[in-house]
Amino acid sequence: MTSATDFSQVTIVGFGLIGSSIARGLKEADVAGRIVAYDINQHHLDQAKDLDLASDYTTNLSVALSEADFIVMATPVGAANDLLRDVLDHAPEGAVIIDVGSVKEAFANAAQSAATQKHFIVPCHPISGTEQSGPSAGFGNLFRGRWCIITPLKTDTPEYDAAVERVVQFWQALGSMTEIMEAKHHDIALAATSHLPHLIAFTMMGAVDDLESVAESEVIKYSAGGFRDFTRIAASDPVMWRDVFIHNKSAVLEVLGRFTEELVAMQRAIRWGEADTLESAFRRGREIRRAILDAGQEKDVPNFGRDDPE
Amino acid sequence: MTSATDFSQVTIVGFGLIGSSIARGLKEADVAGRIVAYDINQHHLDQAKDLDLASDYTTNLSVALSEADFIVMATPVGAANDLLRDVLDHAPEGAVIIDVGSVKEAFANAAQSAATQKHFIVPCHPISGTEQSGPSAGFGNLFRGRWCIITPLKTDTPEYDAAVERVVQFWQALGSMTEIMEAKHHDIALAATSHLPHLIAFTMMGAVDDLESVAESEVIKYSAGGFRDFTRIAASDPVMWRDVFIHNKSAVLEVLGRFTEELVAMQRAIRWGEADTLESAFRRGREIRRAILDAGQEKDVPNFGRDDPE
Repeated sequence: MTSATDFSQVTIVGFGLIGSSIARGLKEADVAGRIVAYDINQHHLDQAKDLDLASDYTTNLSVALSEADFIVMATPVGAANDLLRDVLDHAPEGAVIIDVGSVKEAFANAAQSAATQKHFIVPCHPISGTEQSGPSAGFGNLFRGRWCIITPLKTDTPEYDAAVERVVQFWQALGSMTEIMEAKHHDIALAATSHLPHLIAFTMMGAVDDLESVAESEVIKYSAGGFRDFTRIAASDPVMWRDVFIHNKSAVLEVLGRFTEELVAMQRAIRWGEADTLESAFRRGREIRRAILDAGQEKDVPNFGRDDPE
Repeated sequence: MTSATDFSQVTIVGFGLIGSSIARGLKEADVAGRIVAYDINQHHLDQAKDLDLASDYTTNLSVALSEADFIVMATPVGAANDLLRDVLDHAPEGAVIIDVGSVKEAFANAAQSAATQKHFIVPCHPISGTEQSGPSAGFGNLFRGRWCIITPLKTDTPEYDAAVERVVQFWQALGSMTEIMEAKHHDIALAATSHLPHLIAFTMMGAVDDLESVAESEVIKYSAGGFRDFTRIAASDPVMWRDVFIHNKSAVLEVLGRFTEELVAMQRAIRWGEADTLESAFRRGREIRRAILDAGQEKDVPNFGRDDPE
């Protein structure tokens, strides 16, 4: 069992949606002695203070880290890679350092080359989030029942293994299920299940926005026909997603190539009126949906063209 | 106001999700003297009878139509175009005939050339539906608060105008908002807001299903990252959607061309690391989402990575 003594001081570096949700979750689970909130944005810290989400709030990284035994880097992917050396400069000996980025190989490489005997860097990716951002959008149960993928460095010591075990306990305390895998494999799996869907949704916005023949008011009026499902995904944080595509370039380009191939085949089938090709391609959708429902990931509730939770 | 005498006998030709939902809605609104269910599938009629959705159930089109003053063709797009002549052969003089297909120009052309002075054909497209199918999946409030687009024929007589007015009342009795537009414009607007999103979602299933490097179990496990939003759309009826793409070929190819152009630009920006291009493209998503929320189409509720209504 996890107890408060496991995490005497958790410092959260970057106090936005994810960072503030971790703070809430830790408070609710009562597993952290102290929680320190660090952000370069004083407005975020003020919001956090108003909501009483941490024990201390600071824009000084040295102060934030001086007593930390568990450090969470909850910044966008691009910022996390750059910030790591600063964190290592200030982190006390023996501290465990995790990130929460959606791309793992780039961070794992940076961590592997920066790693010292003094600290234990354990790359993590909790697969949860909303299209909202900022500390006031956070929720303590954001991670509950969701997967968190952990991609440990190639550091095969008993001390590092023990640090990974603490990280597993950390996420379990927040209600997550954990899975350990290689960073490279994480990046291709997530390129397929998350990064490509987001890229496609963003692209759809641009394509429809530019159509002169269809008024924006019509796009909005008739969005229940399918478009609206894409708008929620496409409302996600532009900076976070910019960084994801910059840092997971090769995996994204690989699955995108596969997607484009398939799309051209569909285009050709439509142009030539190949009804059977279309129908059999479309049948796969129901099978995959069924597999997700069978895996208990969600309930099969009809949506009536009202596609969001209410 | 609409009253029961407005629709003395409504015959619903094709008693699946949409047909049975219309029957339920008419019963709940109490605006039809009699409802007759016609289907070539006896199993559908048996289900409908068990649920007490109509006054009569028959697989004989002549019997179904002999007393009808309002006829709803609720079959897939392909079947509706073929079925129209049979319906016209059996429909009583003065009857109003509507369809519910997602493509309007092909049906409007068929209707225009088949139209007689005896009947009033008014093409309709209610923008609602779920990814479910069959009469037991129907709901009386499926159309409530949704748009129904009506694309009248070029038949400029007072009698035809009166028939269009009855059709408007019909959909309003089911709780819909109605909009009148040209069939050609409907097809391009819906290609953008509905047909392309469905095509993309179906294509995504194929692209991810074929990736050797990612196990199907992983796709299912990590689907909360975005992929799952696509699976619901992609679970829609394969036959209905096959027909949509066959009958709305030119509009779909036009918006698909626009989408592909945009996608190639995204691909290029990722390959060359053009962070600013990506970020500004991604910002559009939030703006469009905001416009939909401002239009009151739905509430802004965070989804916690749990993207479906529960």
